[in-house]
Amino acid sequence: MPESDKVIELAKRRGIFWPSYEIYGGVAGLYDIGPVGARIKNKIINTWRKIFVEENSEFVVEIETPMITPSKVLEASGHVENFTDPIVECTKCHKIYRADHLVEEMLKINVERLKPSELTSLISEKGLKCPSCGGDLGEVRSFNLLFATNIGPYSGTTGYLRPETAQGMFTSFKRVYEATRQRLPLGIAQVGRVARNEISPRQGLVRMREFTIMEVEFFIDPDDRNVPWLDRYYNEEFRVLFGDAKVKGLKPATMKVKEMIEEGLLVNPWMGFWMASASRFVQALGISKDSFYFEEKLPEERAHYSSQTFDQIVEIMGEKVEISGHAYRGNYDLSRHSKFSNEDLTVFKKFDQPRTVVKKTVIVNRDRFKDNPELQKEVMMLVSGKSPEQVEELLNKQVQVAGRPLSEFVRIMNREEKEHGIKFYPHVVEPSFGVERCLYLSVLSAYREKKDRVVLALPKDLAPYQVAVFPLLERDELIKKAREIYNLLSGKYEVLFDDAGSIGKRYARVDEIGVPYAVTVDPQTLSDDSVTIRDRDSWSQIRIKTSDLESVMDKLFSGQDFSMLTGEAKR
Amino acid sequence: MPESDKVIELAKRRGIFWPSYEIYGGVAGLYDIGPVGARIKNKIINTWRKIFVEENSEFVVEIETPMITPSKVLEASGHVENFTDPIVECTKCHKIYRADHLVEEMLKINVERLKPSELTSLISEKGLKCPSCGGDLGEVRSFNLLFATNIGPYSGTTGYLRPETAQGMFTSFKRVYEATRQRLPLGIAQVGRVARNEISPRQGLVRMREFTIMEVEFFIDPDDRNVPWLDRYYNEEFRVLFGDAKVKGLKPATMKVKEMIEEGLLVNPWMGFWMASASRFVQALGISKDSFYFEEKLPEERAHYSSQTFDQIVEIMGEKVEISGHAYRGNYDLSRHSKFSNEDLTVFKKFDQPRTVVKKTVIVNRDRFKDNPELQKEVMMLVSGKSPEQVEELLNKQVQVAGRPLSEFVRIMNREEKEHGIKFYPHVVEPSFGVERCLYLSVLSAYREKKDRVVLALPKDLAPYQVAVFPLLERDELIKKAREIYNLLSGKYEVLFDDAGSIGKRYARVDEIGVPYAVTVDPQTLSDDSVTIRDRDSWSQIRIKTSDLESVMDKLFSGQDFSMLTGEAKR
Repeated sequence: MPESDKVIELAKRRGIFWPSYEIYGGVAGLYDIGPVGARIKNKIINTWRKIFVEENSEFVVEIETPMITPSKVLEASGHVENFTDPIVECTKCHKIYRADHLVEEMLKINVERLKPSELTSLISEKGLKCPSCGGDLGEVRSFNLLFATNIGPYSGTTGYLRPETAQGMFTSFKRVYEATRQRLPLGIAQVGRVARNEISPRQGLVRMREFTIMEVEFFIDPDDRNVPWLDRYYNEEFRVLFGDAKVKGLKPATMKVKEMIEEGLLVNPWMGFWMASASRFVQALGISKDSFYFEEKLPEERAHYSSQTFDQIVEIMGEKVEISGHAYRGNYDLSRHSKFSNEDLTVFKKFDQPRTVVKKTVIVNRDRFKDNPELQKEVMMLVSGKSPEQVEELLNKQVQVAGRPLSEFVRIMNREEKEHGIKFYPHVVEPSFGVERCLYLSVLSAYREKKDRVVLALPKDLAPYQVAVFPLLERDELIKKAREIYNLLSGKYEVLFDDAGSIGKRYARVDEIGVPYAVTVDPQTLSDDSVTIRDRDSWSQIRIKTSDLESVMDKLFSGQDFSMLTGEAKR
Repeated sequence: MPESDKVIELAKRRGIFWPSYEIYGGVAGLYDIGPVGARIKNKIINTWRKIFVEENSEFVVEIETPMITPSKVLEASGHVENFTDPIVECTKCHKIYRADHLVEEMLKINVERLKPSELTSLISEKGLKCPSCGGDLGEVRSFNLLFATNIGPYSGTTGYLRPETAQGMFTSFKRVYEATRQRLPLGIAQVGRVARNEISPRQGLVRMREFTIMEVEFFIDPDDRNVPWLDRYYNEEFRVLFGDAKVKGLKPATMKVKEMIEEGLLVNPWMGFWMASASRFVQALGISKDSFYFEEKLPEERAHYSSQTFDQIVEIMGEKVEISGHAYRGNYDLSRHSKFSNEDLTVFKKFDQPRTVVKKTVIVNRDRFKDNPELQKEVMMLVSGKSPEQVEELLNKQVQVAGRPLSEFVRIMNREEKEHGIKFYPHVVEPSFGVERCLYLSVLSAYREKKDRVVLALPKDLAPYQVAVFPLLERDELIKKAREIYNLLSGKYEVLFDDAGSIGKRYARVDEIGVPYAVTVDPQTLSDDSVTIRDRDSWSQIRIKTSDLESVMDKLFSGQDFSMLTGEAKR
């Protein structure tokens, strides 16, 4: 059984995740997050929030916008037109396939971004048939992955479930900008549900129809490279596979952010800032630097709004999963929404010093038309709708009207004006994570087998509970004492209490859900007020006084290794 | 301007909440939660989680299930049939109204739960016309409030956005039960988005088309009143208006949970446990005990699944809002899902002692039919399909077959059997909160005006930031020092840094978003290393040494009053 199947089995058994609506046969692409999974998931979100929002709280804020999105917003964003996958239907058994995946699997070639018509030709050329019944495949069409619904009674307006949270940040950008510092850079973060009507989702938590996303839309002035926080991660290094290297078939290479910027490999230095943040975050999930790299998408692989994109790829136990995406969206979204909504979404950049500019104005000498409306009409027809520069050109060409020089009626005046700044669309850098993928990869990477038993070696900060408290036996006085210890630790730690079944089974359970430490109350506790602490990873135990329990826990959770403690206890 | 309008204006200006998609003219019933609102909202959720989940962690767990729900689930739950509101359309201008609200507004009577046909009659009897154009109103019809969508490509299956999280807990109940202690009581909690296609939402955060809900489905054995945690809130008291008193036109009366149970006013004592939890939670939002009460719904006012329901009503500044609902759902949902899914959703209750029961069996003496198939047929027709008890009754009546007594062919055998337990459907108590309503009511109840300025006197635990740090002037050395203090406090507190604009404006801003304390670095700081702390509610200030800042903050956040501190500083 491959590791990933074992993880899925463990996830079901121990309440991490399982297919939704199982009693009704399930719905592909929908998963429930169970009691243990929800605790881990919330910690993953909080870890992300810490690194992406809280540590940047001077320039990143978090908001929340709805899933239900009116059609107009997703027309502006391009999703109604472009958020599609190619599908093909068997003309005989009417099974529907994702056309590109089918062709890739059958021909072992890369067909990313081939048009539907090109896929149709390829299928017919190569004589591909339905893998299920051998029937002929029909024409390849585009299927839009937006879930559609109707807002309001009956003839209400069309709406969609958002496929990303990003549009909520773009449509509310002006409001957030005004309610905050009114300065760039401004990051608007969101953690929220999104939905994508995938054609045939089959990869567990990796390809879901509804999931939670964590995104930052980071609005910047692309010309301003003199921002105090920008250099924070210049010395961070991680593995990247840039487009050029990828085309040459090279492997990812380790580089510092600073080098990437200096060598002009990033369209904007902030790309490096967010990739470095993502690198830190993924390591906090327990995934080592060797297990992930960033891969630059080639132009034909990028989404319609992006001018540079990196996928962060995790390779672990034979699985290869895109855990985050880093897109340079430029001013695509704000300019599109400005156009579609007729609202000005630019920001004003004040110059350090006002700049003097020469403005030309067309002056019409109306006196010359006295009692000659026909002449006036002719002149006005010639100049109206033209810019001062265009009129000046006519004058330079010595154009005539009714046999008289135009300059008799019209002249250009040069006026000096002071400009205090300019209006422009901020550019956007977008780091984006799928939370359930993070959950899945954390669990996969923590999965260990030890003497035929399973241990989930999650980082302590992600463990669903920090410590378990057990009475060794189902005896009232042991249970009472264990409850006292539970109450003592609960003020500070997340504690799991369990008094049912053999102690071996209870240890096995907490190992399987990743609880780092288990405190056991046994008959000796009643005589000398000592308890044992058992370490999840080494299975070794120490006995300490109950009065030392809190300080020992504090040590363990401030980074001390359990083996050090065993040493201490022995001394 | 009424208080609620002022709050809405404040909310827009300061980034608490505003209508979604404003640049496109907005969509009724959809709201964005802004940077300040999102911080408060997250704290509201965490406060709920603490009281409803963490403090009950031995028997309550949290899960997460999808919004997208296949049709079958909501057919089983009764929502496809019953989750409707009556609507009526003007035959002239085709405006659509919620029929019951329209009639209630125009006739000032209560028409809750009148059938559509009855509403139609009432409208025609009273001659009600379209309030907008005076046209005739059409027939009243039921409109289903579920948002519908399609899962999978083209002819996929019908799905809905869930209107409550509850069904996710029912459909996964078996999985959660098995992954946890396999004991009752078991609470399954969820915080998640839900959607209701309201006909004409107009009440801001009170009636939304998409919002966040916090629910517990609490599964119990209705016969087991001997549960350790049940008495935790027996001495809590709060105001309740029971159905009988309501019918008599009485006011809510303060009672202890214990009294409600002893007087048989609750269908199950756990109702009192969760209402008491709700009472604590609402007080943590800064809403005093005088401002809310629980109101029992009359039978005709209850949802289809409930046998007792209380609404928790908050009355504040002229607004009356249902902040939570407490429904006794009995075994309605689990039994319906069992029936619709053909899955056994009962749990097994082991008896303390196996019970001996007498089982009757019908014994047919086939020897007597030898060579007489006709007789056998007659006898079998008489007894087949009947229970042993029914056959015994026939024997007692001395029924004959073909002139011979039935007892010649058939006898009843009594056999003793041991039963170790029984299977039953757990009953469900459901406390349910809308998060945005909590946010709105928290802000409304914290709203103060003081000398023409606004102060948001939020409880310290809900404040978006705990402390603000300001340099008095935009001078580099002050900014540098202020940043040091920001860094010092950030490890422990949520700190807002702001160096833009006059100090007066900055104080006004933090007052308006409810930051309890502001620390200001001024020129004196540079000479004697002291800063001022300003209190949001009293506007009074004290000056302390920077080295004492952390300990003073610790005091203030562990409950010490600012005025005590001013006293101390003066001494």
